[in-house]
Amino acid sequence: MSQRQWTLGNIAQSVGLELRGDPSRAVRGVATLAAAEPDQIAFLANPHYRRALPGCRAAAVILAPEHAPGCTVDALLSDNPYAAFARVAALFEARTPAPCGMHPSAVVDSSATVSARASIGPLCCIGARTRIADGVVLGAGCIVGDDCHIGIGCVLAPRVTLVTRVRLGQRVHIHSGAVLGADGFGIAMDDGRWRKVPQLGGVCIGDDCEIGANTTIDRGAIEDTELAEDVRLDNQIQIGHNVRVGAHTAMAGCVAVAGSTRIGRYCLIGGAAGLVGHIEIVDRVTISAMSLVTHSILEPGEYSSGTPLQASRLWRRNAARFKHLDALVRRWAQSGDDPDTE
Amino acid sequence: MSQRQWTLGNIAQSVGLELRGDPSRAVRGVATLAAAEPDQIAFLANPHYRRALPGCRAAAVILAPEHAPGCTVDALLSDNPYAAFARVAALFEARTPAPCGMHPSAVVDSSATVSARASIGPLCCIGARTRIADGVVLGAGCIVGDDCHIGIGCVLAPRVTLVTRVRLGQRVHIHSGAVLGADGFGIAMDDGRWRKVPQLGGVCIGDDCEIGANTTIDRGAIEDTELAEDVRLDNQIQIGHNVRVGAHTAMAGCVAVAGSTRIGRYCLIGGAAGLVGHIEIVDRVTISAMSLVTHSILEPGEYSSGTPLQASRLWRRNAARFKHLDALVRRWAQSGDDPDTE
Amino acid sequence: MSQRQWTLGNIAQSVGLELRGDPSRAVRGVATLAAAEPDQIAFLANPHYRRALPGCRAAAVILAPEHAPGCTVDALLSDNPYAAFARVAALFEARTPAPCGMHPSAVVDSSATVSARASIGPLCCIGARTRIADGVVLGAGCIVGDDCHIGIGCVLAPRVTLVTRVRLGQRVHIHSGAVLGADGFGIAMDDGRWRKVPQLGGVCIGDDCEIGANTTIDRGAIEDTELAEDVRLDNQIQIGHNVRVGAHTAMAGCVAVAGSTRIGRYCLIGGAAGLVGHIEIVDRVTISAMSLVTHSILEPGEYSSGTPLQASRLWRRNAARFKHLDALVRRWAQSGDDPDTE
Repeated sequence: MSQRQWTLGNIAQSVGLELRGDPSRAVRGVATLAAAEPDQIAFLANPHYRRALPGCRAAAVILAPEHAPGCTVDALLSDNPYAAFARVAALFEARTPAPCGMHPSAVVDSSATVSARASIGPLCCIGARTRIADGVVLGAGCIVGDDCHIGIGCVLAPRVTLVTRVRLGQRVHIHSGAVLGADGFGIAMDDGRWRKVPQLGGVCIGDDCEIGANTTIDRGAIEDTELAEDVRLDNQIQIGHNVRVGAHTAMAGCVAVAGSTRIGRYCLIGGAAGLVGHIEIVDRVTISAMSLVTHSILEPGEYSSGTPLQASRLWRRNAARFKHLDALVRRWAQSGDDPDTE
Repeated sequence: MSQRQWTLGNIAQSVGLELRGDPSRAVRGVATLAAAEPDQIAFLANPHYRRALPGCRAAAVILAPEHAPGCTVDALLSDNPYAAFARVAALFEARTPAPCGMHPSAVVDSSATVSARASIGPLCCIGARTRIADGVVLGAGCIVGDDCHIGIGCVLAPRVTLVTRVRLGQRVHIHSGAVLGADGFGIAMDDGRWRKVPQLGGVCIGDDCEIGANTTIDRGAIEDTELAEDVRLDNQIQIGHNVRVGAHTAMAGCVAVAGSTRIGRYCLIGGAAGLVGHIEIVDRVTISAMSLVTHSILEPGEYSSGTPLQASRLWRRNAARFKHLDALVRRWAQSGDDPDTE
Repeated sequence: MSQRQWTLGNIAQSVGLELRGDPSRAVRGVATLAAAEPDQIAFLANPHYRRALPGCRAAAVILAPEHAPGCTVDALLSDNPYAAFARVAALFEARTPAPCGMHPSAVVDSSATVSARASIGPLCCIGARTRIADGVVLGAGCIVGDDCHIGIGCVLAPRVTLVTRVRLGQRVHIHSGAVLGADGFGIAMDDGRWRKVPQLGGVCIGDDCEIGANTTIDRGAIEDTELAEDVRLDNQIQIGHNVRVGAHTAMAGCVAVAGSTRIGRYCLIGGAAGLVGHIEIVDRVTISAMSLVTHSILEPGEYSSGTPLQASRLWRRNAARFKHLDALVRRWAQSGDDPDTE
C-alpha cells in the first residue's frame, strides 16, 4: 500500500470532502461498512447497506449528508459517495509502475514502432506497421496484430488480443482475454453454401474506454466498429461488426449487440441484455438485465422485457397460459364483455 | 489493396454480374451506400438501407433487379446481392500471405508432424502426436495440444486453443480466443460431493466451418462433439459436450447449446438463444434471438419465446399480471363465460 | 488407455458395484449404449436413453436396479449409475503425467516460489511473489500474475490467466481461456464522466472447484470474490466482484452473476441464467435455464422465468397481448365478472 501517511484531514482535503470528525485520525486503507477496523475508511453508496451503519467501527464513513445522522463514527460527506469513495480508494491503491522497455521474450515486427517509454511484457507479440505510444503498458502475453495503433497511456492487462486494424485512443484499459478486431460475422448464403463476406474495416476505441475480460469487439465489414470516449464495457460482452456506441455509455456483463446497431450516449445496458442488429438507440436509454431489444428506441427512458421469476410449479402454469393468451383474449371478446380488443 | 486495376467491366465479368453502366469505369474498392466515392462499389442487400440509394455517389451499386429503378448510378445486378458483394469485396481484400515455416519462438513436441508448407506463428505451442497439414496458418500464440489434427488450408487466428483430441477438416477458420476440446461439463453428485466424469471423447469439425472469437466447443464425454461441414459460429458461443450440429447451420453470437443436443442442417440460431441438453432440432429450423428451446423441434419453421420490450413502467404492470395468469384464467372460466379453458 | 487388464469382476470389485454376469469377461473401455462393442461398458443414467437398452451389445451396462430387467447383457448395479460410470470411466482414462520442472521458455519472476514438484509448461509466465505448490500443473501459455497462490495438486489447462491476487485451494481445475482476478466492474458517474473505482480485493477459490473454459471471475472491490469448496462452473460463466458462492453449487454454461450477490450451498443454476447484484440465494435453490433472478430467494426450491417456445407466428400474437395484459385484466374487472383483481 501507499507509503504516505494519511489522516482523515488530509484525505478530506485531497479529495474535497467535508469532514465531520477528527482530522488527525490516522487511516491505513478502505474496507466495507461491516468489516472496517478503526483505521479504515468505509462508504455507504447503496442504501441497501444502511443497516450496517450503526455497528460500523470505521475511522470514518463516506456518505451522503442525509445519511449522516445514522453514522456513529466520523463522516466524510459527499453528494456522490460512490465517486468520492473511488477517489479515496485510489489513494490506497498499490500500483507497481511497469518498467519501460521491452521484455526480451517479446516478438516485435521490424516495421512496428514502439515508444521507448512503453512497457512491453513477456511473451508479447507485435505485428507489422503497428504503433505503440508513450506510457503504454502491455501485460504478459498480449498480441497486437498488424496495422494497430495504441494511444498514450493505454493499459492492456495480460493476454489481450488486438487482431488487426485496431486503433485505441488514450488511456484505454483492456482486460485479459478480450479480443478486439476479429472478423465480423459476415456470411452470405450462395447456392446452398455459406460464402464469407470479407471484413475490411477496423475497430476504433475512444479515449478513456474500459473493456472487460473476454469481451469481443469485431472489426467492421466496410467501415469501423466504433466506441466513442469513456464507454465502459464489463466482461464477456459481444459487440458485432459496425456497431457504434456513444460516449459515456456503460454495459454490464454478457451483453450482446448485433451488427450495425447504433447506441447513443449515456446509455446503461443491463447484464446479458441483447440488441438485435441494424437498430438505433437514442441517448440516455436504460435497458434492464436480460431484456431483448428488437426495435429502435427513439425516446430516452428505461425499458424491459421478460417475465418475473416464480417458483417453477407456479411458473409452469402461467407459462402454459401464455401460449394461448391471444386465443383467450379472443374468446373473452367474443363472450361479449369487451368492446375493444386491439 | 490489390495491385490489379479493376473496372466495372472486368468486375462484372469476374464475378458474373450483369452491368448496367460504363464498363471502363475504374474502381478502387468497396464502401457503404452512404459513404461510397465515385470510384467505389456499394451494395444494397438489406432493403432497410434503400433510402440511401438516391444520394449514392458510388461507381456502381450491386443490387437486385427490382431495386435497379431507384439506382441513379451504374448498377451491377444480382438475384443475391449480398453474396455478389462478398465476391466483389474479396477482389479488394488485402491479404499478406503467411510465410511458410515455423517461427523460432514456437515450441513443438518432437512427436508432432508439421508440414513444411504450414505457417506456424510466434509463440505457438504444438503438442504430442499432433499433425498439421499443408497450407495451415497458425497465428501468434496458438496452442494446439496433444493428438490433434489440422487439415489442409485451415487458418487459426492468433491465440486459438485446441486443447486435446481436436480434429479439423479442411479450410476451417477459427478466431482468436476460441477454445476447442476443453473437458465437457460432466459431474455426478456422489455422497454429497461432485465427482468429475472423465471426458474421453474429442471434437470433430467439418470442412469450411468458421468459429468465432472466444467461442468454446467442449470435447465429448465418450463420443466426439461434432460440427458437420460449413457450420458457421459467431463469437462467444458455447457448444456443450456431445452436441452435433448439421451442415450449413449458422449461429449468431452468444448462443448456448447444452450437452448431447443434436441440431439439423441449414438451421439458423439467433443471438444468445439457448438450447437445453438431450434434445433434437430437425433441419431448417430458425430460432429467434434470446429464445430458449426446452424441447425437441420436429417441424421446420421459425420459433420464438420471450416477451416484447416495453417501457419499464408498463412492463412491470404486465409482468406482475403474468405471475397470476393461470389464476386469472381460472377465475374467468368460473365466472361462466368460457366453456373451454384448456 | 490403461495397461492393466480389466474384467467385469475386478471392475465391480474396484468400484464397489454388484455384478450380474460373468466376472471373467474382459473389458477394454467405455462407450454409449448405442455404440458399445462386446468388450466395452455402457451406462444408463438418463432414463431418456432407456430405449437403447434392448439392442445394446456392451459387455455390461451400469444401471439402477429398477432398470435391470430391461437389460439383455450383463449388468453392474448402482443406485447412482452416473457416479458409478464416472468411477469406471476413470479406470480407462489415459493420462500422461506432466513432467515435473519448468519448461525453459517459461518466464518466472525472481520473487516467485515454484515447487520443484510442480510442472510449468511452455510459454508460461509467473509474476512477483506468487507461490506454486507441489503437484501443480500449468499447461502451456498460462499466465499467473503477481501475489497469487496455487495450492497442492491444482491443474490449469493451457492458457489460463490468473491476473493478480488469486488464491486457489487444493486440486482446483481450471480450463483454457478462463480469467480469474481481472478488475471488477466498478465505475462511478462523476460530473458527467465515469470514474474507475479501484478494485483492491482478490479472488479466493476453495478446494476441488472446477472452472470452465473462458469463464471469468473478477477480483473484489474491497474484499475477495469467493468460491467455497467443490463449486463447479461450466464454460463462459461471468462472476462479478464480491460474489460469494457456497460449497457444492454447480452452474451450467453462460450463467451471469452480478456483483456482491451471495449464493448458497448445493444450488444448481441452469445455463445462461442471470442473477442481478446484491441479492442472496439460500442453500439448495435450483434456477432453470435462462431465468433472471432479480430478488433474493429465501426458500429452497426450483424457480423459473420466461415464456415457452412457440412457432413464431403464434408467439407474436401472444407476445402482442402480453404488452396489454394489465389493461386487459383491468377491463375484465370493470366488466363486472371479477371481484378480486389484485
